[in-house]
Amino acid sequence: MQDAPYRLHYMPSTASLAVHWMLIELGVPFELELVDFETRVQRSPEFLKLNPSGRVPVLVVDGVPRAEVAALLMLLAERHPEAGLAPAVGSAERADYLQWMLFLANTLQPAFRVWFYPDEPAGPDQVAAVQARARADIQAIWARVDVRFAEGRRYLVGERLSTADFLLTMLTRWSRAMPVKATDFPHLGAYVGRMRAIPSLREVHVREGLTDWIGD
Amino acid sequence: MQDAPYRLHYMPSTASLAVHWMLIELGVPFELELVDFETRVQRSPEFLKLNPSGRVPVLVVDGVPRAEVAALLMLLAERHPEAGLAPAVGSAERADYLQWMLFLANTLQPAFRVWFYPDEPAGPDQVAAVQARARADIQAIWARVDVRFAEGRRYLVGERLSTADFLLTMLTRWSRAMPVKATDFPHLGAYVGRMRAIPSLREVHVREGLTDWIGD
Repeated sequence: MQDAPYRLHYMPSTASLAVHWMLIELGVPFELELVDFETRVQRSPEFLKLNPSGRVPVLVVDGVPRAEVAALLMLLAERHPEAGLAPAVGSAERADYLQWMLFLANTLQPAFRVWFYPDEPAGPDQVAAVQARARADIQAIWARVDVRFAEGRRYLVGERLSTADFLLTMLTRWSRAMPVKATDFPHLGAYVGRMRAIPSLREVHVREGLTDWIGD
Repeated sequence: MQDAPYRLHYMPSTASLAVHWMLIELGVPFELELVDFETRVQRSPEFLKLNPSGRVPVLVVDGVPRAEVAALLMLLAERHPEAGLAPAVGSAERADYLQWMLFLANTLQPAFRVWFYPDEPAGPDQVAAVQARARADIQAIWARVDVRFAEGRRYLVGERLSTADFLLTMLTRWSRAMPVKATDFPHLGAYVGRMRAIPSLREVHVREGLTDWIGD
């Protein structure tokens, strides 16, 4: 039997969701492998061989394990150009695309890392202070993104769906249990509402057994 | 008079160095605009219009200000494909390239942010604890990169110089005042030594008035 071209190591509701969603949207065959965070599989020697960072997603592509959610989204878009999920190299939207992918990956995503693992920066005694700052950082970013959508744009970059929307939408979901949520910002909230109507996003919630947020 | 195609807003010895270096390596015309951190220009209303993050580099491309060092390196490589500073879309090295660019940008670079601004995560009382953890995080990444160079490779990705080397080399430089430096790792140190011999890296040090590290 031919192996599927992609094998996604995932944990429901984590950073692997955007890649899982995109694989469904692309309509390509793939296999799933659960990385059970409850039993700390992500810290096992076997998993660390796949990704020394000990994080999901890992996507096995042509037999080679690859990591970093933003990189995987960009790679999938490049491998399936017919889906048009990234502005082509040389196009007018390309600079905007790269800037937003990198900004989300190296500013917003690390702020959420701090929010979810608040003992990491300064130890268990500082969890409250660390979370307060992460919350402020994240809210400032929502305010900035909200301004961008106030211009009337439907998508984060250009005039069509791209991997930047997959990354941003997943990150807005991560704020669902915070005092101030992404959807509390009017223009960003309207955008998230439009994204939630995408069948592949609804489908990935079903497949990962997630019922919160998607139906809000 | 025709404007230069690029205008780099920079501060010597910061994250703008990699872009400045790459512009010199490409041999394209560009203008420089100093963002004086001493007088907090990066927090001025004028600068925040260029980059709401209040950080350098900002590169004005075709009249539009663009930010995020890793995104700018990728964009420049795409705009000047003849320089061959990024594996082409669809090439065998592409997945490795995207993964390393994103890993450096969203894991190593944020760890250095914490190292240089240790009051940010938990306030001024926690600076020592925060720096100790950032130091451990950074050292763990050097160890991981060192293993990669132990394979005998000359460049971070593939078999030729790419933007991943510009980003990595700049980040190794940031460890120069740390108790454990990137160059303390044997294979990574040998790599840095080879990078330091590149004329454009030496030239950007001269132009930014930097004498430390490059001549070590």
